[in-house]
Amino acid sequence: MTYDLWYWDGIPGRGEFVRLALEAGGIPYRERAREPGIGEDALIQDMLSDRKQPPFAPPYLVAGKMTLAQTANILLFLGEKHGLAPATVSGRLWVNQLQLTIADMVAEAHDTHHPISASDYYEDQKEEAARRARGFREERIPKFLGYFERVLAGPDAWLAGGKRWSYADLSLFHLVDGLLFAFPRRMGTQAMKFPKVMALHRRVAELPALQAYFASGRRLPFGEGIFRHYRELDAE
Amino acid sequence: MTYDLWYWDGIPGRGEFVRLALEAGGIPYRERAREPGIGEDALIQDMLSDRKQPPFAPPYLVAGKMTLAQTANILLFLGEKHGLAPATVSGRLWVNQLQLTIADMVAEAHDTHHPISASDYYEDQKEEAARRARGFREERIPKFLGYFERVLAGPDAWLAGGKRWSYADLSLFHLVDGLLFAFPRRMGTQAMKFPKVMALHRRVAELPALQAYFASGRRLPFGEGIFRHYRELDAE
Repeated sequence: MTYDLWYWDGIPGRGEFVRLALEAGGIPYRERAREPGIGEDALIQDMLSDRKQPPFAPPYLVAGKMTLAQTANILLFLGEKHGLAPATVSGRLWVNQLQLTIADMVAEAHDTHHPISASDYYEDQKEEAARRARGFREERIPKFLGYFERVLAGPDAWLAGGKRWSYADLSLFHLVDGLLFAFPRRMGTQAMKFPKVMALHRRVAELPALQAYFASGRRLPFGEGIFRHYRELDAE
Repeated sequence: MTYDLWYWDGIPGRGEFVRLALEAGGIPYRERAREPGIGEDALIQDMLSDRKQPPFAPPYLVAGKMTLAQTANILLFLGEKHGLAPATVSGRLWVNQLQLTIADMVAEAHDTHHPISASDYYEDQKEEAARRARGFREERIPKFLGYFERVLAGPDAWLAGGKRWSYADLSLFHLVDGLLFAFPRRMGTQAMKFPKVMALHRRVAELPALQAYFASGRRLPFGEGIFRHYRELDAE
C-alpha cells in the first residue's frame, strides 16, 4: 500500500517527522499537496471532506480506509506496522513517550517566535517573542537536551537501546537540526554539554537509509515554519 | 497490581486525566505525592532516581517494572490494558489521536495565563496573557470545540462511537470542565453552539463509575493549575 501524506507545502513543519520515518523505513508514500496541480487548496478541501474520523490539522496520513492525524499518532502506527520501534509493549510505549516529549519541545520552539498568536505576524509579537525566547534558550534547551542526554546510554546508543534506530531517533535528529538552525549561537555554547545527543544527530545524518532522501532535494529547508532563525531571538 | 501515580499535589493538572481513567475504570492505584508523609519532595527525589526510562515530567505511572510518562502515553497503556478504548487498531489510534488533540488544547489553555514563561508569575505577563487569551477565546475555543462537535455522531454518542465511553471521553469532559471554570463568560455564549460536546460533558459527569470519586473529596478543585479563572482574561 502506498500511503498518502497530507501536509502544507513549502515548510518542513511537523510533516518532516513523518517524512523521515517513511523515508528511513523505505515505505512508499505520496506527498499529496506537493504533487503538480494539487497544492494546498486541495489539502484544505480534503481535510474538510466527509470522514468519520477527520483530522484536526495536518499532517495526516491516509492508509487505506484509515486517516491518521497527530504526528506522534502517525508515527506510533508506522512504528508498529513497519518495525520502526521495538515490538515489546514497554519499548513501544517508551518510544511513544520520547516522541511526545520531543513534540513538547517542538511546540515550545514554535512559540518562541509566536508566543501570543499563531495567526498574527511575528512582527506584531516581537517583544513578547524576545522574552519567551530567552526563557527557551536559558531554561528549556538545557532541560530538554539534558533529559535526552541522560536517556542515551552511551555515545553509540539509540534512544530505545538496542542496535537499531527507532522513529524517536529520527525525530530527535530533526529537533536538534531545527535548534541548530534557529538558535546557532545558543547551540554553539550548549552542544558540547550534550555529546551523546550530538553524536546521535550525526549518526542519523549519516544513516544509509536517509541518503537518497537528503540528496533528492525533497527535504525542504528550514525557513518559515516551526524553526525560524531571527538574530534577535538568539544569544549565547 | 496497584499502580503508583506520581503527580504534583494541590492541583488537578494533567494528572487529572490519568486519575479519571483510573477511577472510571475501577483500577487500583496509589496517588503517591498525596500520601501522608510523602509529598512533593519525594516526587522530585523519585523523578530523579536512577531509571533506564525516566520521566521528563509528572504525571507518571509506575506499573511494575515500567515507568510511563506523558499523559497520552499513560492513557494509551491503560486503554489497552484495561479496555478503556476500542480493541481494534483503528479505534485505538483514533482515541489516541483525539487525546493528543485534547492535549493540544490543554496546553493552549495553560498558555493563556503564561504566554511568556511557565516559571514566571502571572502578574509579570498579564498584558501578554490578555492578548493571548483573546485569541484563545475568539479563535481557538470555537475551532477545537467545533472539531469535537463534528466528530460526535449524535447527542448520545461517544467520541469513538460504540456504546461505551473511552478515556478520550473522560478527557474531553475534564477539558470542558476546565474551560467552564476558566472562561465562564465565553463558554456562556459558546456552549450552545456545541450541544453534542456539552451533552457528552453531562453524561460523563453522571457516569455511575465516577460518582464515588466525585463524592470522595479526592477530586481537587481548579485553581492554580492549567485552568485558571482570571476575570480579565474572560469575555463573552
